[in-house]
Amino acid sequence: MDNEIKKEQLVKLETNIDDCSGEALGYAMEKLFGAGALDVWTVPVYMKKNRPASMLSVLCRPEDAERLRGIIFRETTSIGIRETEVVRYALPREEMETETPFGPVRAKVCMNGGERYVYPEYESVRALCAKSGCAYAEAENYIRAAFASESGEKES
Amino acid sequence: MDNEIKKEQLVKLETNIDDCSGEALGYAMEKLFGAGALDVWTVPVYMKKNRPASMLSVLCRPEDAERLRGIIFRETTSIGIRETEVVRYALPREEMETETPFGPVRAKVCMNGGERYVYPEYESVRALCAKSGCAYAEAENYIRAAFASESGEKES
Amino acid sequence: MDNEIKKEQLVKLETNIDDCSGEALGYAMEKLFGAGALDVWTVPVYMKKNRPASMLSVLCRPEDAERLRGIIFRETTSIGIRETEVVRYALPREEMETETPFGPVRAKVCMNGGERYVYPEYESVRALCAKSGCAYAEAENYIRAAFASESGEKES
Amino acid sequence: MDNEIKKEQLVKLETNIDDCSGEALGYAMEKLFGAGALDVWTVPVYMKKNRPASMLSVLCRPEDAERLRGIIFRETTSIGIRETEVVRYALPREEMETETPFGPVRAKVCMNGGERYVYPEYESVRALCAKSGCAYAEAENYIRAAFASESGEKES
Amino acid sequence: MDNEIKKEQLVKLETNIDDCSGEALGYAMEKLFGAGALDVWTVPVYMKKNRPASMLSVLCRPEDAERLRGIIFRETTSIGIRETEVVRYALPREEMETETPFGPVRAKVCMNGGERYVYPEYESVRALCAKSGCAYAEAENYIRAAFASESGEKES
Amino acid sequence: MDNEIKKEQLVKLETNIDDCSGEALGYAMEKLFGAGALDVWTVPVYMKKNRPASMLSVLCRPEDAERLRGIIFRETTSIGIRETEVVRYALPREEMETETPFGPVRAKVCMNGGERYVYPEYESVRALCAKSGCAYAEAENYIRAAFASESGEKES
Repeated sequence: MDNEIKKEQLVKLETNIDDCSGEALGYAMEKLFGAGALDVWTVPVYMKKNRPASMLSVLCRPEDAERLRGIIFRETTSIGIRETEVVRYALPREEMETETPFGPVRAKVCMNGGERYVYPEYESVRALCAKSGCAYAEAENYIRAAFASESGEKES
Repeated sequence: MDNEIKKEQLVKLETNIDDCSGEALGYAMEKLFGAGALDVWTVPVYMKKNRPASMLSVLCRPEDAERLRGIIFRETTSIGIRETEVVRYALPREEMETETPFGPVRAKVCMNGGERYVYPEYESVRALCAKSGCAYAEAENYIRAAFASESGEKES
Repeated sequence: MDNEIKKEQLVKLETNIDDCSGEALGYAMEKLFGAGALDVWTVPVYMKKNRPASMLSVLCRPEDAERLRGIIFRETTSIGIRETEVVRYALPREEMETETPFGPVRAKVCMNGGERYVYPEYESVRALCAKSGCAYAEAENYIRAAFASESGEKES
Repeated sequence: MDNEIKKEQLVKLETNIDDCSGEALGYAMEKLFGAGALDVWTVPVYMKKNRPASMLSVLCRPEDAERLRGIIFRETTSIGIRETEVVRYALPREEMETETPFGPVRAKVCMNGGERYVYPEYESVRALCAKSGCAYAEAENYIRAAFASESGEKES
Repeated sequence: MDNEIKKEQLVKLETNIDDCSGEALGYAMEKLFGAGALDVWTVPVYMKKNRPASMLSVLCRPEDAERLRGIIFRETTSIGIRETEVVRYALPREEMETETPFGPVRAKVCMNGGERYVYPEYESVRALCAKSGCAYAEAENYIRAAFASESGEKES
Repeated sequence: MDNEIKKEQLVKLETNIDDCSGEALGYAMEKLFGAGALDVWTVPVYMKKNRPASMLSVLCRPEDAERLRGIIFRETTSIGIRETEVVRYALPREEMETETPFGPVRAKVCMNGGERYVYPEYESVRALCAKSGCAYAEAENYIRAAFASESGEKES
């Protein structure tokens, strides 16, 4: 795994929406992820005229921005989208798998200088809870421990 | 002005709404106030399936609850409303007016034991800003001061 | 379909959580729905010591409360749960299906006095978007229209 | 109506405010709209020392930024304002009016490639509710339908 | 440590505040904790007239409610407080200390049926980070592990 | 005091975090302030998969950005950080002290063109409340008044 922090020029799209339901926003999020958005989230905002609203935000590559703006305009009631340039710094990471008595589990393993962080995949934690009967936090710790012992071997 | 804190048995209505626009909620708030709601507010909540939603809350007298539930069912997409009994403690208050060189201004004057709080009315603050050219906070202070000096006279 | 608003004695559980991840809360929500919760949602709250926190809320039948409290204690870091009695008023509703040129679609059909509200099921809207290529709001309207015309026939 | 998406270089102002009341923020929003802001909204944020705060955001043209910053400094307790360049993509739109048996109604009509979106004006929806006795969502649909049939004629 | 879940009759106070600064609310929280509140938190809410507001909530014993209402009325601009009865279910817990090579650390140890949960005290985690140079999550895990091994001995 | 609004090129860091506790975020905020961050705040956001999350935001000088990104990567579960350039406009300000019968009090005194704003320091307000027995808002007003009278002398 390459050890350098990755620096990338990206684009953030933002739009405030007050005349669209939460269901429609949930659907738009799904479509945006399906069309190449790197991240999608909403923020509760207060607009004029007593209206609880949502700010929909999308992080994407510059070459995907136009297509994603098209989805926002089509699937929500947005009529204006703000675009800002951002630089994203990302830890080098790898999706890894290791064996446990309960079957294989997966985690995102990230390097930060000399440090190594293990972030268990949500689906693996869920599956482990189901198989082992343990609680969410325990399952997370179990997976982290499994990667910790395995990593020692790998590095030798 | 009666000096006792007023204790009243009221009802709080709550409903979570994820398939209704902010505009429709704003309209519902207006209708609810018009139909006797003592207070109406919304809280941003997170529901299942990626949906930003709003919890609409209404405070009202028990005898108004049924009518207000009817408005919620009709004007929003709510299909279930939770009702809780609450006791409201309210400071004794009076809407009062006093004269200033910029014309009359109004405030809510509340008593709390021996203490007296002056809360300027928003519309009076706004009007004073327009007439005097001063900023919002200044105008508030000006109105508080006007009531403070006047109250001295009244109580003598 | 019975035309009366249904009144039911329920229980609301609430707990503030500041030392639990959003992922773990998402998992807890899933478990709670699976164990009979009628609704589950979270509210962003501000607690002491600069901590963004979540208030987890659960609506359930009185006989399910103890089991659901057990899940909260086990799957989150909550160590105290508040319980309040609430009465829920629910519109009489029926999950209905109707045919369209794009296949069957489903909606929740509610009665409120003489009025009839059609709330399309999210999964049907999604499926219709995929098949017809139309946007979310259009698909919703299409389903509502399909139920409107069908209802005419039914009632004749 | 011109059919191209409009691209414009704008400016976003942001400031975090923890020692200003919601009333004062509401007043500042009003002043900012009155002085040329294209949009104004607030976001609930968590700051240090247990303080619920608001991030006030303003979208404006570059030539209005200085004047609007002046209003923020004067009407709120902000002492620092962040400014970012943003590009806004806006759908071509037109405020249109059409006749109905309940009188004229207005909507924002937007073009997106070959698609045409009708977003009814809030005030028209409100007025229609008052005149016709129908609920908010129905009134919206009624206005959309009125524009749909009219547009057919116009385009012929 | 007693192993039963503790059930207690408590009171929840709530008030919506839109004309008070975040600083003043932070101060009120501090006073309320100092005067016996069991928990205090705020929720961002949307009120009428474009006002971002906060709902201040306090959990307390019935015999403390009147004193705490007095603090809210005095230190904030609240003029009405809603009170609801709640039952709190609390896990049996004990503040415990154990030794580590970096000095003593403290945790809240809770029992839930046969399960035992260790929640490290924030101040101990912080102190351990400072002494050991490790990151927050690592320090938490280290403390949990220290209690786990110690508990084995205790129970033998 | 220099009377010009200060314009400075700064950097805003943002990261969305859904698998980190509020306690850990509170700790990260503290570390970031200690390492030169000019401001740190979090915003409640909604991410995919039912997860309440927080967007952590940091304002800093360009030369501090790399060090602060390192703290975020180490102390939270963030694996990607967005960076945007912002220009900050700041009012010229001075931390000033004045004498009162209750001892010295401090305020941030800002100049905006010909206007002068006095923002009392939170710690001074708190201390004054403790010594004088007055409520928070009164103490703020008292400090503002103390600076107002003193400023007259200074300027003569």
